[in-house]
Amino acid sequence: MFAARFSRSLSHWIFLAGLLLAVAAQAADPLPSWRAGTAKQAIVGFVERVTDSRGKDYVSPPERIAVFDNDGTLWAEQPVYFPLLFAFDRLRALAPAHPEWADKPVFQAALAGDLKGALAGGEKGMVELVEATYEGDIDAFRAEVKAWLASARHPLTGRRYDAMVYQPMLEVLRYLRANGFKTYIVTGGDVEFMRAFAERAYGVPHEQVIGSRLKLVVGDNAAGRAPAVEFINDGKGKVASIVAQIGRRPIAAFGNSDGDLPMLQWTAGGSGARLMAYVHHTDARREFAYDRKSPIGKLDKGLDAALAGNWVIADMARDWLTIYPR
Amino acid sequence: MFAARFSRSLSHWIFLAGLLLAVAAQAADPLPSWRAGTAKQAIVGFVERVTDSRGKDYVSPPERIAVFDNDGTLWAEQPVYFPLLFAFDRLRALAPAHPEWADKPVFQAALAGDLKGALAGGEKGMVELVEATYEGDIDAFRAEVKAWLASARHPLTGRRYDAMVYQPMLEVLRYLRANGFKTYIVTGGDVEFMRAFAERAYGVPHEQVIGSRLKLVVGDNAAGRAPAVEFINDGKGKVASIVAQIGRRPIAAFGNSDGDLPMLQWTAGGSGARLMAYVHHTDARREFAYDRKSPIGKLDKGLDAALAGNWVIADMARDWLTIYPR
Repeated sequence: MFAARFSRSLSHWIFLAGLLLAVAAQAADPLPSWRAGTAKQAIVGFVERVTDSRGKDYVSPPERIAVFDNDGTLWAEQPVYFPLLFAFDRLRALAPAHPEWADKPVFQAALAGDLKGALAGGEKGMVELVEATYEGDIDAFRAEVKAWLASARHPLTGRRYDAMVYQPMLEVLRYLRANGFKTYIVTGGDVEFMRAFAERAYGVPHEQVIGSRLKLVVGDNAAGRAPAVEFINDGKGKVASIVAQIGRRPIAAFGNSDGDLPMLQWTAGGSGARLMAYVHHTDARREFAYDRKSPIGKLDKGLDAALAGNWVIADMARDWLTIYPR
Repeated sequence: MFAARFSRSLSHWIFLAGLLLAVAAQAADPLPSWRAGTAKQAIVGFVERVTDSRGKDYVSPPERIAVFDNDGTLWAEQPVYFPLLFAFDRLRALAPAHPEWADKPVFQAALAGDLKGALAGGEKGMVELVEATYEGDIDAFRAEVKAWLASARHPLTGRRYDAMVYQPMLEVLRYLRANGFKTYIVTGGDVEFMRAFAERAYGVPHEQVIGSRLKLVVGDNAAGRAPAVEFINDGKGKVASIVAQIGRRPIAAFGNSDGDLPMLQWTAGGSGARLMAYVHHTDARREFAYDRKSPIGKLDKGLDAALAGNWVIADMARDWLTIYPR
């Protein structure tokens, strides 16, 4: 009787100790979805160096700025940028009021669900689609995006689009913020599309989202946008908007395409410890393996520069234990 | 002997107790440079309401955005905006390399120290002065501004210009931040001029400074500006840049001129608790009493709206116990 009670009690304690150890290990590992390896080591090593107030690489908190591309870096981007898929769906809702769209082949392709045809217009076609579907009152637009995220499902995974954010990158965002970083999204996508969900999905507040933008129309007590793209936040444009709005050079940057390369190089060009990381899409089974070739965007020079510069390559198949949040 | 020791010890304790009481009083009053009255009461009452998580006026921390004009609101602006006085001084330093300036009456007046003549060109003249003296590499420009602040003295007070910030407003900035607010400077002055000293003088980091701007020129590893004003952050422009960069409506705004009125009205137009405050220059003895008339800027409609809207009027002679930091 005593022995039985003792042994039950012992197993109890052993179980509890195991649980505590697991919790402690979790707490000790800020990036549990990253497989041990050079990429993970480089990120953790960087954060430890810049926050060690007695080390030579120490960076004061106000200087701890980290910038992140969104499409392909924080969430998936296949078969095409999700903000464009929103534009297609919204086009369908608006079409009945726009008989004149019958003359636009790109719009007709988008309405017919013909992705290839919709992309055949290149950047000009995409800009026209965005202008037609993103214009109008900003609050109403954000509400549309939220409603779409709640109802739309990805054609291949069946997931909500905002459930296709990358779990390992969520951990990086949190880890950096826990270490005094301000995390910014610097996206080629539209700034108001992002603001509709960035706070909830990424913990990034509106004022830390920088994106492409339509021309503002400020009324007495409402703000809207004209159907006219004013600024495309891509390539060197990302550097320009970082200079204009953040006003200091980031010490960490994450991207996945040629459009992010100037931002990564700008970050690399500063003095002191730097972290440049490039998400490499290599996982055909769990995500997509498009390497250097995508129907959208260019991914060639970015990868070359990352390899040549010895930047962190986040190879999804190799480095990420999990892709999407459970 | 015992009595002497006791009395010394007692006086010790009384002194210490007094000290503690003084510290406690200081801690209890977040705005010690504001005289008790409706203005102070309105500011403190607002902060207490929006931070009371059980009250009906509670505002969650991410929504606690406060915007401040700079010239005439956070520091003095007479006899003319200090950023313009910097432009005059810099013009003098650059003039030997610019013989072509001999043809510009506004520049010649500025070089001769003729303030009235320098202002005779109106906004166009001011823009030309700024373009000629603010262009070039951004880091070098900020260094120039810092050097100027360290050496230049105000013609009337003999103070450093950055010692002419308003002590009561420094207390408001700190008080709001201590209560979870993000404090933004939204100035008609140049954004890079402000960034040269806003962090040290006001505790406002670069990314929370929004101002007028020159056209950016982004090189491979340096950022400069062309001698071309791209955006004047005044009037409705202040609202546009708040919408674009902050992405949410402020719940508190401080200004002192017609150029701040749209920003104050924009803040007032939101739902829930709001704080709009207008600095009224009424103190000829300790600062300047220009009321509705200034050689620079218009101050008429702003004051009318503040009175009509029952906004907080910070009457400098009445409400401020101290003007400048000691």
